[in-house]
Amino acid sequence: MHLQSHQRCGGPHTSLTHFFTLLPSLSPAAERLRHILGEDDSTPTPTIFTEMDTLQQEGGELEWKESARWVKFEEKVEEGGERWSKPHVSTLTLHSLFELRTCLQTGSILLDLEGYSLPQIEIVEQQITDGLIPPDLKEKIIFVLLRKHRHQTKKPIHRSLADMGKSSNTVSFAPFTDHAQSRSMNDISDTPSTDQLKNKFMKKIPRDAEASNVLIGEVDFLDKPFVSFVRLAQATTLGGLTEVPVPTRFLFILLGPHGKTKSYNEIGRAIATLMVDDLFSDVAYKARDREDLIAGVDEFLDEVIVLPPGEWDPKIRIEPPKKVPSAEMRHLGQVNGLAGGAAGGEDEELPAPHELGEELKFTGRIGGGLWLDIKRKIPWYCSDIYDGFHIQSISAVLFIYLGCITNAITFGGLLGDATDNYQGVMESFLGTALAGSVFCLFGGQPLIILSSTGPILIFEKLLYEFSKNNDVDYMELRLWIGLHSCLQCFLLVFSDASYIIKYMTRFTEEGFSSLISFIFISDAIKKMVGAFKYYPINRGFKPDYITAYKCECIAPDQGESSNYFFFNYFMLIFYLILFSFNLTDLDWSQLSKKECVKYGGMLVGNSCKYVPDLALMSFILFFGTYSMTVSLKKFKFSRYFPTKLRKLISDFAIFMSIMSFVGLDMLMGLDTPKLIVPTEFKPTRSDRGWLVMPFGKNPWWWCVASFVPALLVTILIFMDQQISAVIVNRKENKLKRSVPCWRKEEQRLTGILVFVLTGLSVFLAPILQYIPMPVLYGVFLYMGVASLSGIQFWERIKLYLMPPKHQPDFSFLRHVPMRRVHLFTLVQIVCLAVLWILKSTFLAIIFPVMILGLMVVRKLLDLMFSQHDLAWLDDILPDKDKKKKEDEKKKKKDKKAPEPESDEEVRKCTICQVWICLS
Amino acid sequence: MHLQSHQRCGGPHTSLTHFFTLLPSLSPAAERLRHILGEDDSTPTPTIFTEMDTLQQEGGELEWKESARWVKFEEKVEEGGERWSKPHVSTLTLHSLFELRTCLQTGSILLDLEGYSLPQIEIVEQQITDGLIPPDLKEKIIFVLLRKHRHQTKKPIHRSLADMGKSSNTVSFAPFTDHAQSRSMNDISDTPSTDQLKNKFMKKIPRDAEASNVLIGEVDFLDKPFVSFVRLAQATTLGGLTEVPVPTRFLFILLGPHGKTKSYNEIGRAIATLMVDDLFSDVAYKARDREDLIAGVDEFLDEVIVLPPGEWDPKIRIEPPKKVPSAEMRHLGQVNGLAGGAAGGEDEELPAPHELGEELKFTGRIGGGLWLDIKRKIPWYCSDIYDGFHIQSISAVLFIYLGCITNAITFGGLLGDATDNYQGVMESFLGTALAGSVFCLFGGQPLIILSSTGPILIFEKLLYEFSKNNDVDYMELRLWIGLHSCLQCFLLVFSDASYIIKYMTRFTEEGFSSLISFIFISDAIKKMVGAFKYYPINRGFKPDYITAYKCECIAPDQGESSNYFFFNYFMLIFYLILFSFNLTDLDWSQLSKKECVKYGGMLVGNSCKYVPDLALMSFILFFGTYSMTVSLKKFKFSRYFPTKLRKLISDFAIFMSIMSFVGLDMLMGLDTPKLIVPTEFKPTRSDRGWLVMPFGKNPWWWCVASFVPALLVTILIFMDQQISAVIVNRKENKLKRSVPCWRKEEQRLTGILVFVLTGLSVFLAPILQYIPMPVLYGVFLYMGVASLSGIQFWERIKLYLMPPKHQPDFSFLRHVPMRRVHLFTLVQIVCLAVLWILKSTFLAIIFPVMILGLMVVRKLLDLMFSQHDLAWLDDILPDKDKKKKEDEKKKKKDKKAPEPESDEEVRKCTICQVWICLS
Repeated sequence: MHLQSHQRCGGPHTSLTHFFTLLPSLSPAAERLRHILGEDDSTPTPTIFTEMDTLQQEGGELEWKESARWVKFEEKVEEGGERWSKPHVSTLTLHSLFELRTCLQTGSILLDLEGYSLPQIEIVEQQITDGLIPPDLKEKIIFVLLRKHRHQTKKPIHRSLADMGKSSNTVSFAPFTDHAQSRSMNDISDTPSTDQLKNKFMKKIPRDAEASNVLIGEVDFLDKPFVSFVRLAQATTLGGLTEVPVPTRFLFILLGPHGKTKSYNEIGRAIATLMVDDLFSDVAYKARDREDLIAGVDEFLDEVIVLPPGEWDPKIRIEPPKKVPSAEMRHLGQVNGLAGGAAGGEDEELPAPHELGEELKFTGRIGGGLWLDIKRKIPWYCSDIYDGFHIQSISAVLFIYLGCITNAITFGGLLGDATDNYQGVMESFLGTALAGSVFCLFGGQPLIILSSTGPILIFEKLLYEFSKNNDVDYMELRLWIGLHSCLQCFLLVFSDASYIIKYMTRFTEEGFSSLISFIFISDAIKKMVGAFKYYPINRGFKPDYITAYKCECIAPDQGESSNYFFFNYFMLIFYLILFSFNLTDLDWSQLSKKECVKYGGMLVGNSCKYVPDLALMSFILFFGTYSMTVSLKKFKFSRYFPTKLRKLISDFAIFMSIMSFVGLDMLMGLDTPKLIVPTEFKPTRSDRGWLVMPFGKNPWWWCVASFVPALLVTILIFMDQQISAVIVNRKENKLKRSVPCWRKEEQRLTGILVFVLTGLSVFLAPILQYIPMPVLYGVFLYMGVASLSGIQFWERIKLYLMPPKHQPDFSFLRHVPMRRVHLFTLVQIVCLAVLWILKSTFLAIIFPVMILGLMVVRKLLDLMFSQHDLAWLDDILPDKDKKKKEDEKKKKKDKKAPEPESDEEVRKCTICQVWICLS
Repeated sequence: MHLQSHQRCGGPHTSLTHFFTLLPSLSPAAERLRHILGEDDSTPTPTIFTEMDTLQQEGGELEWKESARWVKFEEKVEEGGERWSKPHVSTLTLHSLFELRTCLQTGSILLDLEGYSLPQIEIVEQQITDGLIPPDLKEKIIFVLLRKHRHQTKKPIHRSLADMGKSSNTVSFAPFTDHAQSRSMNDISDTPSTDQLKNKFMKKIPRDAEASNVLIGEVDFLDKPFVSFVRLAQATTLGGLTEVPVPTRFLFILLGPHGKTKSYNEIGRAIATLMVDDLFSDVAYKARDREDLIAGVDEFLDEVIVLPPGEWDPKIRIEPPKKVPSAEMRHLGQVNGLAGGAAGGEDEELPAPHELGEELKFTGRIGGGLWLDIKRKIPWYCSDIYDGFHIQSISAVLFIYLGCITNAITFGGLLGDATDNYQGVMESFLGTALAGSVFCLFGGQPLIILSSTGPILIFEKLLYEFSKNNDVDYMELRLWIGLHSCLQCFLLVFSDASYIIKYMTRFTEEGFSSLISFIFISDAIKKMVGAFKYYPINRGFKPDYITAYKCECIAPDQGESSNYFFFNYFMLIFYLILFSFNLTDLDWSQLSKKECVKYGGMLVGNSCKYVPDLALMSFILFFGTYSMTVSLKKFKFSRYFPTKLRKLISDFAIFMSIMSFVGLDMLMGLDTPKLIVPTEFKPTRSDRGWLVMPFGKNPWWWCVASFVPALLVTILIFMDQQISAVIVNRKENKLKRSVPCWRKEEQRLTGILVFVLTGLSVFLAPILQYIPMPVLYGVFLYMGVASLSGIQFWERIKLYLMPPKHQPDFSFLRHVPMRRVHLFTLVQIVCLAVLWILKSTFLAIIFPVMILGLMVVRKLLDLMFSQHDLAWLDDILPDKDKKKKEDEKKKKKDKKAPEPESDEEVRKCTICQVWICLS
């Protein structure tokens, strides 16, 4: 028996074929395991943290040195580097697994050892009792087992650089003491030491975790391996055994004669990897005897994935995959069915069908959904406010406030631009503040940044253009649209309309949001090109001939007589009377360009129609803001600085870019076009008041007719809200959401504070007027480009340019032929082109209705494509988005108007528009 | 026996433990293999291409459909996607390997089957003879085996979309014909079909390859698996069996009763993976019997890498690693030693020590190295010229020519800038052309782009500044330096000085090249800032007050009287006499700025000292060129377009950026500073001739004294050449080299043509003068930044900013503690700072000697760091660079002056400077 165990477990090297011959006959492992795991499936076993220590000789002193640890993946101590490696997948040798199996067969197995502060001694005594080791080795083994444990967190006490290369872990017994227990006291204590408590790694370990300790060492007094696997009846803190204050449940000890360090280490890694395996750890907790454990190893072996030695270098560390097979997937019942074809099994899978959450069900009663939502939310209302009194709230308020005003400024500026300042920054601020506060008080998910989104901005623009071209008073029309839309939203809420969502697919959503993106991009570029027209550059300018450039204002009588001469003269007299000027006093050369034109003077000179520097400066501001925002957003994925700081930089990318280029603009001191914002608390445009009269300027029937555009707004809000959900949720797969730390998620006070602050920010006007418009156009461009990048449609367009071998491994490419994918994309492109053309005609105003057109086209696609292909290309919503979507719905019904979630800046709440109009 | 094979090989599912019990006792596999592989190791076995076909029913017709293929890695047919997956590492199940082992134990093994066009029939007959299958199945099995093979390249003939989901590969025998051979003829022919010949995939398969075909199918007439492994005596083309015209050597057939498709497929994948394994394919070629094959499987099993099932999802396709373990590493002799600790074995490795090639040996004779080089090269001289007459040469000439003039323009422009046009673009062209042609005629490695490099440019700049500040005639000094340097290079060549290289380490090289990079970057930025000073922007400009801006030239008598009045007046009279002007004729307001100043006029006005647009436009050109070059260079790593096109774009990045921004500049038509280049064939500067007189302007002793700066040049060239080698070679790890396709290229004609063309390009002057200087500064900045990114020193600086867990897995980080790495980097930073400060003082001229100082510092580091740490941080040269370096040396000794290899643009050959001075 002794000889056998010597030869097999960590003994002289034997090839695998040895094992085939020596392995005993067993009943099928799966059956055995199904029995023990089936016994009581109700109590989940704790997570296991494994630490592997190897016996080392440090300065003549024997000690156990931590060499690797496992939470789920392996982290190794870089011997030379004196630091932890990154977590990686444990690559084992098949050999070590077989050797481990033999070790478990021949070593001593102690299950449910009763509470004892030094189980190491118990183990040795047990082996002597069993006759596995001669009694005279007892003292020596106990001495070795009770040596101090040094963890990677601690620096060695005395260690010369020269030693490092040749440190050996074979023990010579010069410092042997006759009393085995003479050891440092920190290892006996059953309360955690300060070192253990200070270890920050504890954060990575689940709270319910228990430790399994693997001890591997070479000693010169053994001629065969000493192997022991111990499960303690109760998880116990065994002094400084583990680097973190986690109680130990399992102990695996392998001591052997010297010469086989590598082999022992590999066996240690094998058992450590097994201990963190979901199935094996279950087995280890519930095993009744040795055979159960071995059955666990066999099941593990049956499931392992094998890489061919010629195709993979074991030195490469494999990073943990994004998704690991879940324990349920690997559940014993399925194991046998899967094992035969795990790697080839992907063909069977289909994208998970879209399921509707409880909140999206059609109740059939008026206001039924709303009533259910209120019932769900009421019990939490008080704590929603109390929870806000917390120190963390201050930083949350600051963070969200900055995000909020950045949005309000950007969209306010653009909105002012689109509506000739009928709705400008000031209105944007006020609307956000009012609607936001109300939302935080009554909304379903209060911690949300409310702000404008692209579609509404574009609708406002189209509406303003429409009313200007048709001589309709914009403000009055807008008021009625707001009132109608508000009413329609209420109707939607009371009719449980959200259930319609299920008819909306990726195709529709992507068409819509691509269109929005393209409008963003094209508008930003148009504005920029406009700057070059507005500030023409004098191309032929020769610095040396500066003396030849001038622009003079010449009095009308001095200029050449024109047809307008008398008219101009008349105007001049008119002005003179009006402003009590004296004609003879007028020094024409002192007039500015505008004054000159006003008084009928002539601008003569070759520099009159040019404006230096401004166009180029605008371009630099525009492109600089865009590029900086892109770079800062990407910074989240760089390797520099701690994750938190990177996230912060990325979250504040837009704010920081705006700040930087406002700074640059101020530094250059050029007269670039600035954001127009009133310096006092009054509407942006001086000829409108806060209150809008509902009647008077437009024919009476507009009050009724505005029902139609209001319906468009309502559709838009409805669509917008859905698409926001999709984009945000899809984003989440790549980017993480921005405000997660304050999400716990979820009280009302912070939000109210944010929006009160936003309201007070209308007094920021003196600061805001320093923001150049090109900077905002840059942000505009960024938002268009950024929202494109989250869309699968866009990914598929890119495929046209990629040779097949360079295409990313999208799941739909595994299942749908390339030509069908391209065809589907082409249909989308054509739809988009049609939408784009429609948008440029008078039909632009019915823009939101086009979306319904997209839904019709999508329905026709059922005739062109098989359901199999559509399932992959047009999956309604990713499965993981479902939960998020439910949350959205919840909100929606609570509140009168839909409140899209927001960490992207393209968010809005139309109720602010409604408020503005009412105010 | 029949029953046994049924139960084991592809039979009902059995757990692994079954195999343990059933495996027969064997002699150790390794011993057996050592015997057969040791027999004749002299003949290397061919590379194996494996194709796996599965039996499918397509439109009522049975056929073999290709489902995967292996060159080295697996490519799978994406069933739904109807295309090839990317090559990936085959992830197998341990189970399938054990099942395969059983299949090989129980199936029929036919080794060295004699040449026969239809071995399938032979196989069936053999099994009947052996009594493995009943004779009545013969016809049926042969019928199935001889069905047509459809490869992924071909589209199915009739296939509806609905079928796709449910195609079954179980055979029903409705279309059974009594004559088994009634099959399409294309499968019998032993010459390759056109389909096979047209298959472009053939390019990926080595020329000596032989095929192994794996055929897997389910049939309903068998009640136990039919397994056969065949090795043909001669590799034979078996009709359309294989997708490419590669002769078949091995056949593995597995037919079995239905219900176990997945299991069969996995067995097929297992044998296919084994067949492309270096060791197993050797075994397969040399196996004498069944036991040898099984021993091969056992050895494979002994070496496999195992991934734990809970940590890795088998659906993830693992991309082929950059480096796979070589067959030698895995050689049988070492197998046993490694198997125990493959994954833990990296601690033992040390960076490969630097070895010197044969060409770098110190011969001890005068000109010994040169003589050896000539002896090596002479035999190839004639073919070097004849080989050039090839159609491919035309594109090569064009490609290299463009690279060549881009460099000449950039560096010529910058050199002209640095030396007040004493050496400008014209000289650069001429020098490159002359030196290049001579080099191509006599050089050791003629296909090289000769051009200037940074260090020489900086030296020229420092030298020019020195001579200007010390009233020394630059041209004369430069001539003597050239002559001295030429002589010194000859001395180096004759004294076999290259062997000194071994004293130069990464530390020295990196310090030097970082310094160069920083000088590039700082100079580019300085120039750019200069533009803002040279073209001041009128910050306070208000477009509306354009009428108030003017600049007028006022006659001196009209201006206020100054102290210079009489002097100016005197000057004016002088000019008037000189140019026969009439004072009364002078219209002061018509004078340009320069004329006005010249004639003593006064510039009066608020726009006189401003220049509009030019500064901002310069910045846009500068930054645009830089960014575009960076983006285009990176384009090589994008997923778009075929690799070749991407490489082309990346290679021509600088050329394309220059062209684009020259175009933009022309479009804007602004008077930005342009490259000064003479419009006729004459020196750039009008006050120098082509010939430089050696005496006359400087004191005689300068002829001797210039020996010292010449020595600096020589050191610089020597250093430069070494560093070029290192940078180029290190680059090669990431980027691939630019001109590889014509490299085999290696003949003299192309080069001569290129340089003749370059010489003729001096007549390009009318075009070159359109290039704005800011564009060249942009390229300058790019070059500085790009050369930094290849330096390990720079990577280590970045580590300061990275939290440990985000640091890349550099090998030195695995072996050297972080604090030592940081300390080493800090020393380098301090050295660099000292060099930078020195550079700014009068010591700048001895710049090249500083490098020697770096070598001294490096020597002192031996006292601070252990040799172990230094070996990792300061490895002299990566092992793989060795060969390349030898090539360099070869060149060097052939030619009088060192010729650095070039695909980076920062290259040069100083001999052109020498030539210029001589001419």
